[in-house]
Amino acid sequence: MESISVGLLGLGTVGSGVVKVIENHQDKLMHQIGCPVSIKKVLVKDVNKPRAVELKPEMLTTNVDDIISNPEIDVVVEVMGGVEETRKHLLTALRNKKHVVTANKDLMAVYGSELLSVAAENGCDLFYEASVGGGIPIIRGLVDGLASDRITKIIGIVNGTTNYILTKMTKERIAYEDALKKAQELGFAEADPTADVEGLDAARKMVILATLGFSMEVDLEDVKVTGISNISEEDLQYAKRLGYTMKLIGIAQRDGEKVEVSVQPTLISDSHPLASVNDEFNAVYVYGEAVGQTMFYGPGAGSLPTATAIVSDLVAVMKNMRLGVNGKNIVAPQYEKKLKEPHEIYSKYFLRLLVKDEVGVFSNITTIFSQHGVSFEKILQLPVKEKGEAEIVLVTHQASLKDYEDILVKLRDLKSVHEIKSSYRVEGNGN
Amino acid sequence: MESISVGLLGLGTVGSGVVKVIENHQDKLMHQIGCPVSIKKVLVKDVNKPRAVELKPEMLTTNVDDIISNPEIDVVVEVMGGVEETRKHLLTALRNKKHVVTANKDLMAVYGSELLSVAAENGCDLFYEASVGGGIPIIRGLVDGLASDRITKIIGIVNGTTNYILTKMTKERIAYEDALKKAQELGFAEADPTADVEGLDAARKMVILATLGFSMEVDLEDVKVTGISNISEEDLQYAKRLGYTMKLIGIAQRDGEKVEVSVQPTLISDSHPLASVNDEFNAVYVYGEAVGQTMFYGPGAGSLPTATAIVSDLVAVMKNMRLGVNGKNIVAPQYEKKLKEPHEIYSKYFLRLLVKDEVGVFSNITTIFSQHGVSFEKILQLPVKEKGEAEIVLVTHQASLKDYEDILVKLRDLKSVHEIKSSYRVEGNGN
Repeated sequence: MESISVGLLGLGTVGSGVVKVIENHQDKLMHQIGCPVSIKKVLVKDVNKPRAVELKPEMLTTNVDDIISNPEIDVVVEVMGGVEETRKHLLTALRNKKHVVTANKDLMAVYGSELLSVAAENGCDLFYEASVGGGIPIIRGLVDGLASDRITKIIGIVNGTTNYILTKMTKERIAYEDALKKAQELGFAEADPTADVEGLDAARKMVILATLGFSMEVDLEDVKVTGISNISEEDLQYAKRLGYTMKLIGIAQRDGEKVEVSVQPTLISDSHPLASVNDEFNAVYVYGEAVGQTMFYGPGAGSLPTATAIVSDLVAVMKNMRLGVNGKNIVAPQYEKKLKEPHEIYSKYFLRLLVKDEVGVFSNITTIFSQHGVSFEKILQLPVKEKGEAEIVLVTHQASLKDYEDILVKLRDLKSVHEIKSSYRVEGNGN
Repeated sequence: MESISVGLLGLGTVGSGVVKVIENHQDKLMHQIGCPVSIKKVLVKDVNKPRAVELKPEMLTTNVDDIISNPEIDVVVEVMGGVEETRKHLLTALRNKKHVVTANKDLMAVYGSELLSVAAENGCDLFYEASVGGGIPIIRGLVDGLASDRITKIIGIVNGTTNYILTKMTKERIAYEDALKKAQELGFAEADPTADVEGLDAARKMVILATLGFSMEVDLEDVKVTGISNISEEDLQYAKRLGYTMKLIGIAQRDGEKVEVSVQPTLISDSHPLASVNDEFNAVYVYGEAVGQTMFYGPGAGSLPTATAIVSDLVAVMKNMRLGVNGKNIVAPQYEKKLKEPHEIYSKYFLRLLVKDEVGVFSNITTIFSQHGVSFEKILQLPVKEKGEAEIVLVTHQASLKDYEDILVKLRDLKSVHEIKSSYRVEGNGN
């Protein structure tokens, strides 16, 4: 090969990063691949817009076919985002025998298996390291690094925006709205932060991780999702007091043949390595039957970190091109999807209640828990000055989701329970 | 291929783990490789010794040639340890066109480049993921995951024994000897702990990481090594007070074309993720020009974790066998080795002195530092009850090793400085 030609779909933050990494690290890339890499064409919306990187005008195009149907292009790097239209473009590119590298988690979470099978049929590579955890090589960690192990659980802090907001709320004791505003000012949150703060972005990433980790095609609809917009400062302070840190956590867990995948605000033990993953950083904790526990930590987003993952994928494509083995290592999921029922999903829970401050109330509450065989790890009861109310904070031992939800229904029916203030999943032991 | 045959050199803790992982995870391996994997022959010292895993008697041999020269064997897994003899065996195996997977850091740190080039010449793979960080896929992280980035610094807690000892000393406030004894009782330290506690084991691993990370052949003699056997409880308590945690840290740092590699007890900022890597766990922190900071964390040793890394290497060998591309991805170091001189190695330092408690002493000391342009980040002065002495604890700002060593010589010459109690490198900012 004389040189490898790349077509870039999109030239936003990440796209510009890709251009920079390819330019700045050309000698390292040359050494590994054995030939130069060059960006041939870049799809943009407006060729006249000023940009973070300078490119020759003839490299820019507004016509996607100049890339996906261009016989001179070997690899398509997709950093334009979007799902339906982007899917069509990438299918065309693959059918035109172009390898694809994408950072698009929205796309991979929904059409990943289709795209991978079309890639394999066409002898093409399709890599997507940048779709989860930005610069953290977690996909390779699961696919190659832990290739011999059977994964039982993946816990991820996979959304930088929410982790930044929760870190600010916890450390600076500020309200959700203020932390969100700060995140928006710093560019860690978008003008419309819904997909991040409501957990959807994290859910997409967990779909990708669970599908790989369990070799089972998990769908976005299978993920139970709760966001962070209802978390109060009081919850964070109670968490702290009990030895926990609040994080938006994606959990994918396998027991035997069945799996569960969820994203929710979770109290994680202060001594767990994930509790000290702060600000916009991401981390994925993986439990394997043989390896025990490993963690991958790093920047979950950002122009250059994400570009690093993309260009490392490019290096893999190019090494495969040199050897003529592209598309040969795509392995279809091994197992049929089997999801756990609510009575099979076990966890500990944090529950904060506002109750009438009178004799017998606490006993009524605990009776409901014991009827379901659920016991407590921690109990705090605090008088509330006004209205003759008391606040009760409970951390349960392991309980099934079914039991826990039944308990919540019964608690709501108790006249002496004025309000269920909050309820969170709990991972690990507090202090 | 009908099946892939493995020959195992050694059947100790890690070897038994390899047998178990191959047996227990056979269906996952089959799915990925497309054919069964079986262990054909195992080299042992004594065929009659009782073992952790049961193998048919005809599988055991005391003659290494039954494996390294056996035409039925495709891959040799080396978990016997040792350097000179083992090197010869593996060279024979490679020349007999057998792929090699090894967990042997002692061997790879000294003969890695020779073995890799013989492997490439013979179209064989040589993988060694298990040689650093046990079950942590750090080698793959450096080679593939960060393939596109230029690494500037690697900081590793790469020895579980010393990390266990330092964690115990710090958390339980016990002396070095007691912590070592505890580690030995639990099997985290060997009867002769010298290679671990004097930093040699960590140094070998840093040679492997630096060679890969900087694409430059670093030798064991290039590593400046200090162990942990002289660390006192007082040092640990001072560290804590100043916002640092003591860890045995391997540092490989590149500035421009020049590198430094060292292993020494280091005060690391409490807020740095490495500070909370406790007990026998390992972690490697990697700084890249584009990616920023990433960390790989996990079990640094142990039968099954280490076996996971070995069998994941086996999977890689077997995938390459299926595609006929073994030995094609071995890349020789890109750069000629250039080591930094002492005046080019910069760091912060912690220094604890016992001085005469009289007017002008402190000024004499600080004058020496300022003559070398070194200023202080933190200063503690405490009276010592007896003998009219005072204890001074200093943390410097960045200083060159040359300046710092010159300062130490001058301090030793000062009559008012009774003793230099301890001196450590410092990473990050304390509180």
